[in-house]
Amino acid sequence: MNAYTDLMAFQRDTEALGQTAGRLSWDQETMMSPGSADQRSDEMAAIEGILHQRRVDPRIGDWLAAIDEASLDAVAQAQVREIRRSFERNSRVPERLASELARMISKSHGIWAEARADDNFAAFAPTLKEVVALRKEEAQALAQGGDSYDALLNDYEPGATAAELSAMFGALRPRLVALREAVLAQPELPGLTTHFDEAGQMRLAEKLAAAFGYDFRRGRVDKAVHPFSSGSGNDVRITTRTEALDPFNCFYSTIHEVGHGCYEQNIDQAYRLTPLGSGVSMGVHESQSRIYENQLGRSRAFTGWLFKQMRDEFGDFGIADEETFYGAVNRIKNGYIRTEADEVQYNLHVLLRFDLEQAVIKGDLAVDDLQGAWDDRFLADFGYAVDKPSNGVLQDVHWAAGLFGYFPTYSLGNVYAGCLHDALRKAVPDLDDQLAQGDTSAATGWLQENLQQYGGLREAKATIKHATGAEPSEAPLLDYLESKFKDLYKL
Amino acid sequence: MNAYTDLMAFQRDTEALGQTAGRLSWDQETMMSPGSADQRSDEMAAIEGILHQRRVDPRIGDWLAAIDEASLDAVAQAQVREIRRSFERNSRVPERLASELARMISKSHGIWAEARADDNFAAFAPTLKEVVALRKEEAQALAQGGDSYDALLNDYEPGATAAELSAMFGALRPRLVALREAVLAQPELPGLTTHFDEAGQMRLAEKLAAAFGYDFRRGRVDKAVHPFSSGSGNDVRITTRTEALDPFNCFYSTIHEVGHGCYEQNIDQAYRLTPLGSGVSMGVHESQSRIYENQLGRSRAFTGWLFKQMRDEFGDFGIADEETFYGAVNRIKNGYIRTEADEVQYNLHVLLRFDLEQAVIKGDLAVDDLQGAWDDRFLADFGYAVDKPSNGVLQDVHWAAGLFGYFPTYSLGNVYAGCLHDALRKAVPDLDDQLAQGDTSAATGWLQENLQQYGGLREAKATIKHATGAEPSEAPLLDYLESKFKDLYKL
Repeated sequence: MNAYTDLMAFQRDTEALGQTAGRLSWDQETMMSPGSADQRSDEMAAIEGILHQRRVDPRIGDWLAAIDEASLDAVAQAQVREIRRSFERNSRVPERLASELARMISKSHGIWAEARADDNFAAFAPTLKEVVALRKEEAQALAQGGDSYDALLNDYEPGATAAELSAMFGALRPRLVALREAVLAQPELPGLTTHFDEAGQMRLAEKLAAAFGYDFRRGRVDKAVHPFSSGSGNDVRITTRTEALDPFNCFYSTIHEVGHGCYEQNIDQAYRLTPLGSGVSMGVHESQSRIYENQLGRSRAFTGWLFKQMRDEFGDFGIADEETFYGAVNRIKNGYIRTEADEVQYNLHVLLRFDLEQAVIKGDLAVDDLQGAWDDRFLADFGYAVDKPSNGVLQDVHWAAGLFGYFPTYSLGNVYAGCLHDALRKAVPDLDDQLAQGDTSAATGWLQENLQQYGGLREAKATIKHATGAEPSEAPLLDYLESKFKDLYKL
Repeated sequence: MNAYTDLMAFQRDTEALGQTAGRLSWDQETMMSPGSADQRSDEMAAIEGILHQRRVDPRIGDWLAAIDEASLDAVAQAQVREIRRSFERNSRVPERLASELARMISKSHGIWAEARADDNFAAFAPTLKEVVALRKEEAQALAQGGDSYDALLNDYEPGATAAELSAMFGALRPRLVALREAVLAQPELPGLTTHFDEAGQMRLAEKLAAAFGYDFRRGRVDKAVHPFSSGSGNDVRITTRTEALDPFNCFYSTIHEVGHGCYEQNIDQAYRLTPLGSGVSMGVHESQSRIYENQLGRSRAFTGWLFKQMRDEFGDFGIADEETFYGAVNRIKNGYIRTEADEVQYNLHVLLRFDLEQAVIKGDLAVDDLQGAWDDRFLADFGYAVDKPSNGVLQDVHWAAGLFGYFPTYSLGNVYAGCLHDALRKAVPDLDDQLAQGDTSAATGWLQENLQQYGGLREAKATIKHATGAEPSEAPLLDYLESKFKDLYKL
């Protein structure tokens, strides 16, 4: 047991330092003054350096070798599994490559931002080529002879393969394209048209966070340019934003981040500051944010309650009744931007990126041809042409940040949310009656009980399977989307 | 040069981690939700553990041994001096003792707070005995045969000795006792009597911070229970507090913390994230906060400007003119509490603690006799008796926190501020004309130029001597106080 105890004590300090680095990032987005930015980069680089040294510390290898895994209980075995994965992953990437990548990524962000502002993909392409080359080199080091793209994917979704995701997403795509087309052939649903006081939006955002079970005693809500959730265990903070003309942006960003935040807050306290003390994968994390935001938050029942709250906060805002309000929350419109997309079109945006980035990493698509490939695929799925690169290939920061393998976890999260929603409806037959009162406790309690509390105990797919009792499949998501939107649009 | 370069690279990461720990403390006092406290303790303990390991890392000893100091320039020699001091200091304290002390101090805080609330010194004495015993053990390890109290003092004021401070403070005490008595025999000066809007106090606090040169682009001002300054270099944050009946508390706490903060902000950028990149000692630090707060901020000239600002912000608040306002800012009243004391009485509070804590550490005074010794000394210097321990021996957190050797740096700071003020007046003869316009730039510029920019380049006393051209002495402070208060009270 000594090797295990020593390993966990060492790991605990690493986790604490990791939490600290996360807190600094939060501070940077919410509190830090602009003139502190250079020093903060230095501080972050130093902490990341110390973290990296700890993650590849040869003592971890010694401890892992000395542990008799068969003698450990299931929780300890899972801890060892996660520590071994991280240790092997980090040990495979040469120091030189890791720091070249870090430097290149920090440089590429500015070049991407400028190219996007100028709507000029050619100005970004040479840099993106360098990022891709380094990430491919890293992927080869990680893959050890296996598939390069899968190696990158596994940074975000351990255990997933592109083949498996392609099968799921392949089933999604034609039915979503068809659903989108059918919906957009129908008359447009009315949306919001007035201004909404931003202080009132923040008040209601906090009310929504509380309604979804976010524990303000172990976190806080602030404004930031981009909504995010940060931290694990007992210090989990979320951010949101306000736009005078679009309070739904504020409310649904808030509910989304509350989903992420509650997952972290609700993990078994015994796992705090251990590898099991955070969400198990990006896909499972996204399943929580999405089910809170969409299947619960955008349901007819819950929007009925939200409509009353908005009337209380803002008075008459030009929407006559609950049903019209439900339509305003869920209406589908043409648009180029992934982050502004609705439940139906969002996945089409992601699938496009997933296919293109696989082709780039496999070498089947040259970076120089990326803009053309993007525009062709967009036209094929959405039926109209991209008007400029900032509405197309340059819209997302991910590739500039070297995040290849990240995009598919968004749609995997939606697929998982579909599976969980299906199981939840069976477990809580009167869910809509509760949601109509603004009461999410049966739903969030079921998620906490069956999924969130376990953190990283089981691997991602096993986590979903444990909660739902079935192998994950895209079918429930598709059924849910078709049923919801055919009903809403009277198809 | 390689050993020096390697040492500095290692040190830089340690400094960055130290800044991070400081940022977490700031967060804890300003932003963190109460339910995050336990986890934060764990995170801080982990970071402090990692910092401790780095500070005693045997490679530091190897690098120090390999460096040819004579070949280094003055800045590099100063870096080595500071790193060696810290390395030797930390290496002398056995791991076992360091962690026993940390545990005891974390425990004693709660016991002290309860004893203070119950006004029961006997309930705290056994714990204080344990803290004293451990600190004495640590002092002996640090002193290496030298004086134990000096060893503790040197944690806060490197190079200072109790003998030297006793000589200075011995000259202060009788004249301050006499001045206090003379002033309090005069008619009382009027004070403030109305409520001051707290949002208005914060607006004016920020105006004052700007007036004293605090750079908001590299910091921020927040409210906290206790005012403090935090961080070095380009991320230096300060806090203040508001009380409806006492806006001077807010304003002068702000100016005080701005003094600390500007010292850190104004250090040469080349020293950022190195041992020279922070204030050189507690005494020199306090000299900056005190000269900003007192010699500048409480001057007749500056209070004239402040009076106008307060009239602009709050309207008529019952003080008729600038001269009455100057009296309200500077009036002297009886009181038991150090942190509420005026310029004259403050040092008497500190001298009392300095003499008592020396006696405790030397073994000349038993902890059980501390309350009696406190009360006797208070009666002797202030002329009336302490009414209850929370107004006496239990009022400060320092001893519960193991901070023996810290108190004298407060008065040393005042002494240094006196020296600097003397030199500043000679260098800027028309200072009062500028202060009367709210313009501190000549004063703060002189401090930046002659002291602040150098950070830890010179040791504490040499820092003051470099700025003033003279050996530090208590004489300028005494002359300043006697002149100011005899004038104000028409003595």
